[in-house]
Amino acid sequence: MTDTNHNSIGIVQTQIANIELSTEGFKLESGRSLPKLEIAYETYGKLAPKRDNVLLVCNTLTSDAHAAGRNDPSDPKPGWWDDMIGPGKGIDTDYYYVICSNILGGCKGTTGPSSINPATCKAYGSEFPPITIGDTVEAQRALVTYLGVDRLAAIVGGSLGGMQVLEWSIRFPGMADSYVCAASGASLSAQALAFDVIGRGVVTSDPDWKQGDYYDAGRGPIAGLAEARKIGHVTYLSSRLMSQKFGREKKAEDSSANCDAADGFRTRFQVESYLDYQGKKFVDRFDANSYLHITRAADEYDLKDKFGSLENAFASAKGKFLVVALSGDWLFPPEQSTEVASALIRAGKKVSSCRLDAPYGHDAFLVEIE
Amino acid sequence: MTDTNHNSIGIVQTQIANIELSTEGFKLESGRSLPKLEIAYETYGKLAPKRDNVLLVCNTLTSDAHAAGRNDPSDPKPGWWDDMIGPGKGIDTDYYYVICSNILGGCKGTTGPSSINPATCKAYGSEFPPITIGDTVEAQRALVTYLGVDRLAAIVGGSLGGMQVLEWSIRFPGMADSYVCAASGASLSAQALAFDVIGRGVVTSDPDWKQGDYYDAGRGPIAGLAEARKIGHVTYLSSRLMSQKFGREKKAEDSSANCDAADGFRTRFQVESYLDYQGKKFVDRFDANSYLHITRAADEYDLKDKFGSLENAFASAKGKFLVVALSGDWLFPPEQSTEVASALIRAGKKVSSCRLDAPYGHDAFLVEIE
Repeated sequence: MTDTNHNSIGIVQTQIANIELSTEGFKLESGRSLPKLEIAYETYGKLAPKRDNVLLVCNTLTSDAHAAGRNDPSDPKPGWWDDMIGPGKGIDTDYYYVICSNILGGCKGTTGPSSINPATCKAYGSEFPPITIGDTVEAQRALVTYLGVDRLAAIVGGSLGGMQVLEWSIRFPGMADSYVCAASGASLSAQALAFDVIGRGVVTSDPDWKQGDYYDAGRGPIAGLAEARKIGHVTYLSSRLMSQKFGREKKAEDSSANCDAADGFRTRFQVESYLDYQGKKFVDRFDANSYLHITRAADEYDLKDKFGSLENAFASAKGKFLVVALSGDWLFPPEQSTEVASALIRAGKKVSSCRLDAPYGHDAFLVEIE
Repeated sequence: MTDTNHNSIGIVQTQIANIELSTEGFKLESGRSLPKLEIAYETYGKLAPKRDNVLLVCNTLTSDAHAAGRNDPSDPKPGWWDDMIGPGKGIDTDYYYVICSNILGGCKGTTGPSSINPATCKAYGSEFPPITIGDTVEAQRALVTYLGVDRLAAIVGGSLGGMQVLEWSIRFPGMADSYVCAASGASLSAQALAFDVIGRGVVTSDPDWKQGDYYDAGRGPIAGLAEARKIGHVTYLSSRLMSQKFGREKKAEDSSANCDAADGFRTRFQVESYLDYQGKKFVDRFDANSYLHITRAADEYDLKDKFGSLENAFASAKGKFLVVALSGDWLFPPEQSTEVASALIRAGKKVSSCRLDAPYGHDAFLVEIE
């Protein structure tokens, strides 16, 4: 689905909010703090006079503030959730005033490990403190306040964004009317943890990572980051979709190949070309340290562990919940959505839940909007 | 299950067969050849006077010739399939004369990339030619002949070994009475290909791989190989087993940790310790180039593609087949065993097939023998 004039929000600019902080800075759950907090964000639609139509979209692992429309008329692609956000779309900008920000620890305008550390006037690198999902939500809250909003109509997020939605409901009970948590869960499974552990291992064992301080080297751990991204991509697609999309098809013989020994171990399978493409595309747009920090925050998130039970976790939550599971999702299997929805019901909350037929897999919430 | 005196085959020695070759050497499917072929093997049980009790066990990706018993009384562990092979066990050495060899391209005594290339008197490294599953079976056939055996009672293998079993049935029809193919298939799925592609990418992007010529460097691509092995280990276990075995449990706080920046991105999750352990253990015992060569051979194996259909592939096969699927296996999902069994039936062969309840996942054929 491509955007056409009638349902695109058109040209938008990413803004930077320079969040006013006390002398203590932006306090993190770890006890450490950031002396400066900038948050990149975009807004779509118009804020109603009563300021009661604000919808916050939470970031996935690697998405940015640019969720809809185009930053420039020449952009080949619109924002990452443009299929969902726009006039007459699922998140209807004729009604909602939509805010989307880049996640704390990210690399697209919000303070993260590649940002300048005011203390040293150099990129944070290894000095960037650990962050949590709670911290990312506190940063979003600071942005919402900065924008003069004190109440949200809805908070929406998929995957890592869904974790942030749950955290919002617990951390700031009643601040939103509705919470939509898609293709997510209250913690990662052991298998999902395992893939993240390996992804970080691959990045940190790349010598170009340089213990996190690679920004002045002119080159980051691109080989490691590309491989980590490939692992992620396998988990974003269902096995069935991979079989349908690639099967064991091979691309045509390429006489220019085999120029080095590593090429000799590349196959001609389409799935290898696809993964190579995804890996290369990712290292051009994403920072390795952001990847490390954000995946670790996701891994450490565990509502059951923190509150003793999920039911306890949601005890003080207010508002309506929609929990959306995707049938083909094996990164956040539907059972995890069921677990969240059941706990919300047990905690006496208003919950709708559904399992969408999504043979695509986890990424269906980004690509199978219809 | 540990071996006890009454059901262990006891102390065994790995032998090396120096296969007599024509001046052309050992011809490979690629058209290239190996000037020398050594095959490491072990045998268990006694060869019957009629030589009609020979059972060949095929290697998995990383197993060696040492399938049962102990090479030395002080060995902490018996061979890799000791639960299955021994007096009174599934593969009963009171009846069978069992042969198990290290796979062609391996690193445990059979000619592989770490072997000395007679042309240069140095390890082959990047000069080692590509091998196929067909080549590995031709090498096994050469070993069987070397041992004076011209007929096999059975050929048994799981995972990659199952592919070799199928290849035997097609390449040398009627040479065995029975073929047992467990937790395997006639080709890898797109998802399994993807994980192998990433595993090889992680190894070849480790600078210590040195384009395959690392043997003189005193250090191989151990970081890359460890990460590749971790990816493999995730695919060997079912998600359910990982949740049961590790869940989100954490090990106790370790004050000695955080000694470098990479440690800062290690978590305390048990699953991370488990993967680290598996990765470290693997690099101590396995060669990175062997890993590259053998996984590529597995990836390229595709009976359907080679013969037009699986039914065609098995057209000339003779003997009885047992095809065993494991319920929790997502590397070789049960559907792939069903596909093999169905094709054998359509081709008019005698086939038994079963799906074992194996919540462990793919590795159940190695660890859940009972």
